[in-house]
Order: sequence, then C-alpha cells, then structure tokens
Amino acid sequence: MLRLGPIAAAARRLPAGPCPGPLCLAGSRGSFARSWPPAGDRRPLFRQVRAAAAGGERVRVLKTPKVRAGSGGGAGAVPRGTRDHPPAQTALRDRLLSAVVSCFKRHGAAAIDTPVLELRETLMGKYGEDTKLIYELQDQGGELLALRYDLTVPFARYLAMNKVTNMKRYHVAKVYRRDNPATTRGRYREFYQCDFDIAGQFDPMIPDAECLKIVHEILSDLQLGDFIIKVNDRRILNGVFAVCGVPESKFIPACSTVDKLDKVPWEEVRSEMVGEKGLSPEAADRIGEYVQLHGGLDLIERLLQDPKLSQNKLAKEGLGDMKLLFEYLTLFGITEKISFDLSLARGLDYYTGVIFEAVLLHQENEHVEEAVSVGSVAGGGRYDGLVGMFDPKGRKVPCVGVSIGIERIFSILEQRLEASGEKLRTTETQVLVATPQKHLLPARLKLISELWDAGIKAEMLYKKDPKLLKQLQYCEDTGIPLAAIVGEQELADRVVKLRDVATREQVDIPREKLIDEIRRRLEP
Amino acid sequence: MLRLGPIAAAARRLPAGPCPGPLCLAGSRGSFARSWPPAGDRRPLFRQVRAAAAGGERVRVLKTPKVRAGSGGGAGAVPRGTRDHPPAQTALRDRLLSAVVSCFKRHGAAAIDTPVLELRETLMGKYGEDTKLIYELQDQGGELLALRYDLTVPFARYLAMNKVTNMKRYHVAKVYRRDNPATTRGRYREFYQCDFDIAGQFDPMIPDAECLKIVHEILSDLQLGDFIIKVNDRRILNGVFAVCGVPESKFIPACSTVDKLDKVPWEEVRSEMVGEKGLSPEAADRIGEYVQLHGGLDLIERLLQDPKLSQNKLAKEGLGDMKLLFEYLTLFGITEKISFDLSLARGLDYYTGVIFEAVLLHQENEHVEEAVSVGSVAGGGRYDGLVGMFDPKGRKVPCVGVSIGIERIFSILEQRLEASGEKLRTTETQVLVATPQKHLLPARLKLISELWDAGIKAEMLYKKDPKLLKQLQYCEDTGIPLAAIVGEQELADRVVKLRDVATREQVDIPREKLIDEIRRRLEP
Repeated sequence: MLRLGPIAAAARRLPAGPCPGPLCLAGSRGSFARSWPPAGDRRPLFRQVRAAAAGGERVRVLKTPKVRAGSGGGAGAVPRGTRDHPPAQTALRDRLLSAVVSCFKRHGAAAIDTPVLELRETLMGKYGEDTKLIYELQDQGGELLALRYDLTVPFARYLAMNKVTNMKRYHVAKVYRRDNPATTRGRYREFYQCDFDIAGQFDPMIPDAECLKIVHEILSDLQLGDFIIKVNDRRILNGVFAVCGVPESKFIPACSTVDKLDKVPWEEVRSEMVGEKGLSPEAADRIGEYVQLHGGLDLIERLLQDPKLSQNKLAKEGLGDMKLLFEYLTLFGITEKISFDLSLARGLDYYTGVIFEAVLLHQENEHVEEAVSVGSVAGGGRYDGLVGMFDPKGRKVPCVGVSIGIERIFSILEQRLEASGEKLRTTETQVLVATPQKHLLPARLKLISELWDAGIKAEMLYKKDPKLLKQLQYCEDTGIPLAAIVGEQELADRVVKLRDVATREQVDIPREKLIDEIRRRLEP
Repeated sequence: MLRLGPIAAAARRLPAGPCPGPLCLAGSRGSFARSWPPAGDRRPLFRQVRAAAAGGERVRVLKTPKVRAGSGGGAGAVPRGTRDHPPAQTALRDRLLSAVVSCFKRHGAAAIDTPVLELRETLMGKYGEDTKLIYELQDQGGELLALRYDLTVPFARYLAMNKVTNMKRYHVAKVYRRDNPATTRGRYREFYQCDFDIAGQFDPMIPDAECLKIVHEILSDLQLGDFIIKVNDRRILNGVFAVCGVPESKFIPACSTVDKLDKVPWEEVRSEMVGEKGLSPEAADRIGEYVQLHGGLDLIERLLQDPKLSQNKLAKEGLGDMKLLFEYLTLFGITEKISFDLSLARGLDYYTGVIFEAVLLHQENEHVEEAVSVGSVAGGGRYDGLVGMFDPKGRKVPCVGVSIGIERIFSILEQRLEASGEKLRTTETQVLVATPQKHLLPARLKLISELWDAGIKAEMLYKKDPKLLKQLQYCEDTGIPLAAIVGEQELADRVVKLRDVATREQVDIPREKLIDEIRRRLEP
C-alpha cells in the first residue's frame, strides 16, 4: 500500500479527466488514426492511447500483455527474460522514448554512448548484493568482460576516464540483469534505461531540483494518471539512525529494512529490524516514529525544530537542503506532487544525498481483471562519491541524476493500446503506387522512383501484376492514406489518378504536378 | 586497387562539385552554424560537413581520428576494440543514423528490435569460419548465451519463430565480433549495423532492385563522394566454377579466394587457387577469364551467349535474373553506378542469389597525410535458405537485404568534420535564462520553468549568482542563440531582456509576450 501525505491524498482525489483532443482515438475502433504519427510533436499519442483506453472511464483489460519472453530451449527461441519487439511494439516504444528524450533535450542535455561491454572490474564493488546479477562473458582469452548493469556506473567511469568535471548528459540504452524475470510486470533481463544526470560542483540543490522537475514533466506529458514523487535524503536517514541509537555499522542494513515500508506494514519492518538486523526494540520504536512521517515544508520545519534531530550535524545539513529544495520546487510550481517521505531509502549503496522515487497512484486495477502492477516509474538521487572510485587520485565529481522506468511505462501504454482495440501504424508510408492492368510494372517502377527521389514515402506490391483490389486493400490494412494509380489511359493522358484511400475519391493529376499535389495533401 | 567497368571509370571522372547550399559551414570556421540542427530534415548536415571539409577541393587531414578505443587493463578503461562516444560523436552519429533510417522509412520498412543476447545454438553453424569471433557468455547456470554477430541471423530466427512469411523491416543496433580491432579504419568489436531486409515470396528481382536503389539513395544523400555498386549472383559464380571444371565440393573455397580479387592481383589469386585450394591450373585459368570481367547489360548479354556458360542451368538462371535486375535499375535511373562484376563473391555462406557491395571510389587520400582507408560501405544479397534453418519443418522464406556500413561512413564524416575545424552543437538549447545581478536565482528559476512548460529548450547556470559575462560566454561556447535576461529593472517593469547572442542586440519584451517572441525568433 502507498502511504500518502495530505497533499498527495488530496491530489489523488482529483479526477484524471477525459481527453478532449481532436485526435481522440475513441470511437474510431478498429481503424487507423490517419494522422498518425503527426509530424514533429508525438505527444498526443499518449493522450490518444490514454483516451482510447479510458474513454473517460476505467477499462477492462482482458488479456495479459502479448509479450514474448524467452523460456529457454530450442533453436528459434530467445533467451529467458528477453524478448523480440515486433513492429507494433517497436513503434510504440520509439514514440515513448522520443517523448522522454525530447524532455531531456529541453533541459539542455547532450547524449553520450558507452559500450554494452565493460571490464568486469569496472562493475565489481558497485552494486552491493546485486553484483550476483551481473552477466559475465566467458574468458575467451584477453580481458574479463561483463555486460553493464546500469548506465550510472558507466557514466561515472566515463567522467573519471576522460577527466570530465562538468557535464549534463542523457543516455538511452539497454542494460542487463541476471534477475528472475517477471515479464507481466515489465521486469526483464534485458531492458532499456533512460537516464539524465548532471555532474559538476554547483550551488546546492539547483541541479537536484531540475531532476525532479524533469520527472514531473515526463510523467505529466505521458498522462499516466496521477503520481507522487517521494523525496528523502540519505543524510537525514543516517541522522535518524544516529539519534535513535543505531551504531554506524548498522546504518546500511537498517536502511534496506526501512525501504520495505512501501510494501509491508510497520510492524513487520520493526520485527525485521529487531530480529534480523539486531537493533534494540527501543531503537526500532524510535526509528518508527520518524520513518512513518511524510509531508511537505511543514514537516521539514517541524523536524528542524526536533530537539534530537536538530542536534545531529548530518540530519541538519540534509534538512536544510531539503528546505532549499522545496523552495526551488515551489518556484517550479510542482510541490503538490512532491512528498517528503522519511521511509524512502532506495536500494543502491552509492547515494549520498537527496534520493527520490516517483510512483503512480491509481493503477487502473479496480475494474480490471488482470492489471499491470507497476510501482515506481522513475527514481534517482545524488551520488557524490562514485566518480572518485574510478579516479586514480580519488578526485570526486558530484553527480545527481534520474532514471525513467521506461519498461514499466511501456507495459502500461501497451495494455492501454490493446484494450482500446486500436492499431498503431508501424510504417510511415504516404503513397502506394498501383496499377489497374497487367504489364505495367515498368510504369510503377518509374513512378515510385520519382516519388522516392522527391523524398516521398512510397511503397508498391512486389508482384508483376497485382490486382487493383489487392493493392487498395494493402492501403487499408497498413494505413497508407494515398494511392497513385497509373493505368494505360493515365499513361496516354500523362496523368496519375490520385486516390484518397479513406474517402475513395480520386482525381487525375497531371504527371508534372503530382509531387506538389501529394505534398499539399500530406501537409498537417 | 579497385577495378572499374567503363561506366564506373567515366563516373569517376565527374567532379564531386562544391556545396552551393546557403547553410555552408565553409567560411564560418570556429563558430557554430546557428541553424543547427534544422528542424525536420537533417540532410544538409552532410552537405555542410562535406563542403566544410572540401571547400570544393581536397583537404589535409592532419590527425588520426580521436576515437578512444580500449586497450585493456585498469579500472577506468573500456574493453579492447570498444569505445565511448562523447557528445560530439554521438551528435554526428545520431544524424547519420537518422539519414539512413529516414531512407528505410521512405521505402515503407517497419522497425523491429531483438535481444543483444541470443541462445548460443541460434548463432552456431551460420557464419562458417567466423564462428570463432562470437562472444560467448559465461555459463552462470541456465541457458548458454552469446552476443549477436549480426542482425541477419536474428531476423531469420525472428521470422521463423513468429511464423512471419512476409515483412519489410529495418533494424539499427549494435553487434559484437571478437575480431582484431582496427580502430583507425573504423573496425571495432562493438559496432552499429543498419539493416534493411525484405522477406517474402515475390516476383523475381523486384525487392532485389529496391535494395540497390536504397544503397544508391543513401550514398547519394550522404555525399560521400563518387561510388560504385558491384553486383553479382552466387548462381552465376557457381555456374562459372562448374563450367571451368571445379568439383562442387570446392565451390565455397574457390568463392572465398575469388573474393580477394579486390585486394590482390589475379596472379596471387590464381596461385592460391592452385596451391592452397587444390584446383587444377587449367580450371584456375578458365575461372580467371570469367572473374576478371565487369561491365553492364552488354556483358550480361555476352555471357548469355557464352557457349559454355549458357549451357549451365544455374548460370543461365542467374544471368536471366541479372538482366531483369538491370532492366529495373534502368527504370530507377541508377545503372551508371552499377557494375556487374564477376569477381564479387562476398564472404558469408548464406547467400543464394544476387549479391552486391558498394565501394567509395576516391578515398581522399591523394593530398592527405593520413586518411581513413575505407573500402566497402554497404553490402548485401539474397539469402533464401536461412529462415528455413530455424523452422522445425524447414519451411523457407526468401529474403534479400542490405546492410549499411555505418561505422566506416562515420569515420569519414568524423575526419571531415575535424579537418574543417567546425564544432557540431551537442545540445539543442534555444535560450539561456540569465540574471545580471545577485540574489535573483528565484527569478531565473521561475522564468526557466515557464519556458520549459511551454516546450522551449532552456538552460541556466547552476550557480546562485553567476556573473553575466560568464552566462553569455556559456551561450557562445555552446551555441545557444538567445539569452533571456531578468534583472531588478526588468522585474519591476514586468519585461524580459531578450538578447540575440550572435548580433548582441537586445530588446525588452513584455513578460506575457516572451514565449511568442522566442518562438517567432526560432522559426526556421
């Protein structure tokens, strides 16, 4: 169960609202949205998908996602936990990635690319217990290699290796984890990560605030439904542990237990602390008083006055920065989606300051037989020590970054699309070049070549003498809006019959004006 | 040495021609082309790069490419034969890939994605001798895995596994070969492939001709200089071997020896045939008469009349199809770049019909101290048996496809760019939000947030009180065209000072009209 601050709870009550856009797919069931994809801005896709699925209301999702996930064995299979993306999925994913990347670019990030292969030693000692999930390559002579586990460690390696001390970069690429796949929940062994990070020594909390703004922009753009971004700071957590009497050696184990509070009730967390992690019952109770707190600026102020916590240097620093962060987020106008939540701990060892995680609030599972169960859809934080681990002299480069959980978001969009019964176009073909009689293949080849050379997206059937009906059917099946038909009469008259596939209207266009006419018709 | 047919040799004499475009970088040395990247069509990039490098003439390339390629050992290194792409390289590569993909889309292809990991058994027995170059994963329990070697075998596996009998797809992704890296020549262990393939049972040579048209379009678009596409057919080669008295068991060894004719003279090839491959000197001499031939339709006609070859069923079939191919290529208007070349053999075992390879003709090495040495920049062919190898019942799906040698093309563009002294923008930021006095961070945060929410690409420095000069310098350094400046006076007057970074002109714009004014200024 998600625990919400009062602001979040209020936000949760807001209706999600139906899609009013003119491109709404709802009502056009079973056919293509002809204007897809619109040139340039692809954002309406998500409004469409959402609207088509919701129709202003909840929808029934009747099937599990048709994701082909490897189950091992036999040629003609993919490895366990991996999958092929057929064209419809690739088209949807490309549009999702393009929405995310366009936000990263809006914030001035440059792209870098690093190898999928890393030296084994680069990855060792960075992921704690999860090191066992790293794929290693066979020793075929030469270096010991492994597949990257995330994009953060390669980024830190890149910065140190190239002595870069200042960089804002994004990276969209696949990462690999030898984990137990849970494909219906969008968890795979090979999956995309979309990371944005800011490296450099700057004034406090300005880059951190921008990372939260980015999460807010992306989740709002994608219209995934209401969400909340939980924020905490490792320094505050460590301060809490300290004032509750936890010895420093037990900070990390205590941290990972606290992290479970979003899944299990406090009583269970408490008993794990006392039983497995060896904290005293008194310490656990004291911790419990803090980590169940969540709220906004008011809570920060209250904790800054807390007689114990305010005496702890780390906690005070963290709370001071948290206050600054909320100031900046207020200027960005996004605090109503932010919850300062002391139970947020995040798994990875390398965080040193602010940490955050975005979760979707209602998961469309009330009237749904089988729902995608998604939790966190974005997360990140500050890691000021990681780059130094790769520098021979230990020189640090402070970093803060965010990773968008693209696979989970993709699962949601995919289910919505499936529920809507809509087809997404998988190609962008604008014109089918067709002939109505036999022996006209040369005419088709000549015409299509002219169209390609003019930059028009065109196809023809790879048959010498296809039936006209088959050719027009192909347009319907694949969403091609125009057909350019050349028959014997048209050749004699030096015209081309241009047919609007949807309305079935067709007019003769003089051959030399065809390109212009097609361009005119395809204008948005 | 490249051996050319008469048409190709004539084409070679044509001047490459200077770039007449208004966006020419030449003459703007050391500064940014402000209009980069233009919205939508990115093709002018290549014209620019070419023009900047060539200035209508040959250029001196003074440095080897600054490609960081791993050399093993030590944390903070990348594996041997792999490399990081820093932002400038990534920006250039993204634009190159986008030009290639836009051609694939123009021809109606859909995108698919397959895992980097494949079952080991999927890859075994597909690459002949090159099987030793496959990266295998450590056996960590479970399946035996390997990294894909190309995109063709995964495509065939995909078709068979999903029982797809008809598909036009493109795939742009990384592949892996444990080869000896030659990084200065653009040869890496991890590199991108850009493949376009047409699968399905169609009328002869129509899809094959389209693949050649695609190569022609891409190489013309990229303006890499003059090129020739060599074409041959495995059936013709096998027919030649048969009529020259080579036993069928020696067709494949003979084939791989013939393939060397583009690098070594006939005498060496002949002696390998006789010495290593065990052909009789007479057979070798007879082969030599055929495989040194190259030309166009005339040569096809001549061979169709050849008393020996015309008696061979395979050769006759291949020559008949080659004639048809040339007919279609004539309709496409591209035969002047096509050379029917009997020495072209291609390495891979799986080709069954037409094969082709595009090579650049002059490699800019005449007046250049150290040149990128590139040969083939695209290649492909027909493989009608590969899909059947994955089908339990051996059902075949005929396929033909092309792979664009993107890494070699990238090396050329990169060297040209470096030689030109130009910088490519690595970000797309349109506006820097700046303040001229202290204590105005809140004003900057509020304004930049408004810009982001309006979809404008904006940055600010992550300092509380940066000097105005520093902020403007940042615009110059990174090519940001506009600065939006809010000082105390501007806040009081409810205006923003909008500065054109290049001209240094600045005007006060009423706050509520700022977004519109920025959009107006950024219009192409």
